[in-house]
Amino acid sequence: MDAAVDVLLERWRGFIDDALARHLDTVGDRDGVRPPARLLDAMAHSLLAPGKRVRPLVVLAAATAVLKDETRALERAMPAALAIELVHTYSLIHDDLPALDDDELRRGRPTLHVAFDEATAILAGDALLTDAFAVLAAAGASAVHELAQAAGSAGMVGGQLDDVAAEGTTPSIEALARIHAKKTGRLFEAGAVLGGLCAGGNGDELVRLRALGRHLGLAFQIADDLLDVTAGAAADKGTGRDARHDKATWVKLLGDEAARARAHAEADAAVALARGFDAAALAALCRRSVARTR
Amino acid sequence: MDAAVDVLLERWRGFIDDALARHLDTVGDRDGVRPPARLLDAMAHSLLAPGKRVRPLVVLAAATAVLKDETRALERAMPAALAIELVHTYSLIHDDLPALDDDELRRGRPTLHVAFDEATAILAGDALLTDAFAVLAAAGASAVHELAQAAGSAGMVGGQLDDVAAEGTTPSIEALARIHAKKTGRLFEAGAVLGGLCAGGNGDELVRLRALGRHLGLAFQIADDLLDVTAGAAADKGTGRDARHDKATWVKLLGDEAARARAHAEADAAVALARGFDAAALAALCRRSVARTR
Repeated sequence: MDAAVDVLLERWRGFIDDALARHLDTVGDRDGVRPPARLLDAMAHSLLAPGKRVRPLVVLAAATAVLKDETRALERAMPAALAIELVHTYSLIHDDLPALDDDELRRGRPTLHVAFDEATAILAGDALLTDAFAVLAAAGASAVHELAQAAGSAGMVGGQLDDVAAEGTTPSIEALARIHAKKTGRLFEAGAVLGGLCAGGNGDELVRLRALGRHLGLAFQIADDLLDVTAGAAADKGTGRDARHDKATWVKLLGDEAARARAHAEADAAVALARGFDAAALAALCRRSVARTR
Repeated sequence: MDAAVDVLLERWRGFIDDALARHLDTVGDRDGVRPPARLLDAMAHSLLAPGKRVRPLVVLAAATAVLKDETRALERAMPAALAIELVHTYSLIHDDLPALDDDELRRGRPTLHVAFDEATAILAGDALLTDAFAVLAAAGASAVHELAQAAGSAGMVGGQLDDVAAEGTTPSIEALARIHAKKTGRLFEAGAVLGGLCAGGNGDELVRLRALGRHLGLAFQIADDLLDVTAGAAADKGTGRDARHDKATWVKLLGDEAARARAHAEADAAVALARGFDAAALAALCRRSVARTR
């Protein structure tokens, strides 16, 4: 059963990668004007780097949870899946800039401002963010509103600013939860809701998907904090990216054990909500969010 | 007659300023989460700086050209007017960054990265761009698609990249027209179309508004190039911003006289299209685009 779901998710990941490549091959305006070649190359550098595609998978899994006809669900939800990965990728490009986290490696490749230059990285991020809404328009105005609210000043961007401001400080657990709810959680929440919206979910289904996305986002963020420590140690660097930037993290505030327990509790809550939809793929994604932290 | 139109446009500009201020006072997500105070301050610094509000005025003028009931037209088109000014303001903030034009003054204020810092300027730009689509969702999915296409990789952002790449070169007139059509023209074009869409314009009306926006954008851009030279001389700096960056401009390629003639020809074409709508405000905006270049 679990093996079958893994095969399914891997197949969907292939569809997402194909859709991302096709998007770059076809993006342009009504008069056939294509983006400048250098801009396309820059967008491809970041967008087509190997990624887990977790957020678009959440969109597709939520859509199939509501609309059991897989083919139709994927077809309807793919623009939203594409859009959320474009937004996620832009956020990584801008976060990595010298004025923000000043990172040099991402997804196994040099960051965009290292591989190209800072001006191109700023503009490629802007382009991916803007193009995301051109793609998402196909899913309707409610989907656009959902993603823009999640990614905007009161959501992801606000959380990113709070996160930078919290470097070197020790916020309360409640404050950290608020920062992460915005920085990471809102995009997962939007992913689950977008899938539901595209599949024609009713109000009750959307409420449950929103709650699922919220738990999943938090589980994912805490697991990420835990893995960052492990990765740092494994790479023999002593510390991971978070410690290097003196980020406020769950591990720093709660310690290893309590952070792990909290991640699993959040994942369990998300899995329970997925069971309400009898949705194996969605439940598997929720379980997977903390799998590597055991 | 012209005085009456000037009063009208000034009143609309007041409505736009009010709507921008109200937007910042109320922006937030469904749970009442507001943006971080520092992010709001940064967005306000750039958004509420005195501006001509030309692009949102184009939206409102196009809407009243189609729907003669002014109150209803303004009400329907205001979200799109707001959204286009948010997008324009983000583009100024990012263009001014050290990695791009590295400018220190804008709209009579220190640029955002000077007044705050580079990280905040990048994030405030991202936030304004994203929030624009949350606002624009109220105008429907077609409006979202129109603005995202105009501002994205094949539109404004692509034009900005081309513009940076053309610094220090002498492109052909055709190449410069293509760069400016993307960098400036597409947003004017979208403004005219958005106004028409919000007012329920038919296909023929939208086609004519698109053509009007295209001519108006080019007239505005050439006039801007001309004024930049004059402003630089008047400020006793010898050169304007464009010359400082060795930008490819109409003045540089055509000379003063021919550039002025081209600007007026484009404005005349736009005015002729506005007359087809019997739309005094729209015609006045088109004439005004080149008024200071005589």
